[in-house]
Amino acid sequence: MKKILALVGDIYEDLELWYPKIRMEEEGWKVVTAGPEANRTYSGKHGYPCTSEADLADIEPSDYDALLVPGGFMPDKLRRDPNVLRIVRDMHTNNKVIGFICHAGWILISAGILKGRKATSTVGIKDDMINAGAEWVNEPLVVDGNLISSRTPVDLPVFARAMVDAIKG
Amino acid sequence: MKKILALVGDIYEDLELWYPKIRMEEEGWKVVTAGPEANRTYSGKHGYPCTSEADLADIEPSDYDALLVPGGFMPDKLRRDPNVLRIVRDMHTNNKVIGFICHAGWILISAGILKGRKATSTVGIKDDMINAGAEWVNEPLVVDGNLISSRTPVDLPVFARAMVDAIKG
Repeated sequence: MKKILALVGDIYEDLELWYPKIRMEEEGWKVVTAGPEANRTYSGKHGYPCTSEADLADIEPSDYDALLVPGGFMPDKLRRDPNVLRIVRDMHTNNKVIGFICHAGWILISAGILKGRKATSTVGIKDDMINAGAEWVNEPLVVDGNLISSRTPVDLPVFARAMVDAIKG
Repeated sequence: MKKILALVGDIYEDLELWYPKIRMEEEGWKVVTAGPEANRTYSGKHGYPCTSEADLADIEPSDYDALLVPGGFMPDKLRRDPNVLRIVRDMHTNNKVIGFICHAGWILISAGILKGRKATSTVGIKDDMINAGAEWVNEPLVVDGNLISSRTPVDLPVFARAMVDAIKG
């Protein structure tokens, strides 16, 4: 059974967390939500609650097959958390699937792993993505090796399917 | 391409609409949201917005392959709408797939189609379901012919997969 880590925090984009999360559970996989605190209920951008199962500080990246980074305003806070950067860098180094959507790119920027990689994001952070060295394209789905990216909740059908396919390998 | 009708209205349960909707879009199908008014933005129980594409009064049930009825408090209002009952009865008579979850059972009760049928729902409306003649069971997923039911958002992985499988036929 595959095990996926999903980042959560205040003002996460509700569907960008929940759609891929439930979609991967549909495959019979375990999706663990981790936030700045364990067992805390974070509120989505539109108000949907999500109670974190784990504290980011306690996460051992090697326990997971893939990482889901939702957007919203959450990445603005989580990109400052050394544990988030430690997790992202470790999973990237070990070629684990990393799915990131919308504003989630901010976290990958701060982890310093986008240089020379093809990716997309909300147009709002396009300049930040390019300045970080990404080859930014305006497409619903970009798969570059282990990195899977999409732009907005409208892209969720292809985003989640691509994550599922990549994790299946 | 399959075409699915999804009911929407104020205080719909956010994920019970959006998860199956996006999941069916992932299959390449069209999901049309219809509410008491067209082009109106309804707010979910937790605040996620959904703008209706169609007015329930304009829906021709024969245009659709399946019906999705989300829960939340929405069904309490929509069960009073003669157009909703017309649509549900027509699709049921024509053996179209009807997926209903949580409090959505109220709408099927008012359509008078549950007598002798096996189904589930939130435990909150269990008594109403039984009084309407349903054989109520406490299971994550119940499939009885064209009727597919689940209890809460926790059941969404199996609920949506069952809808997809049934619509594929």
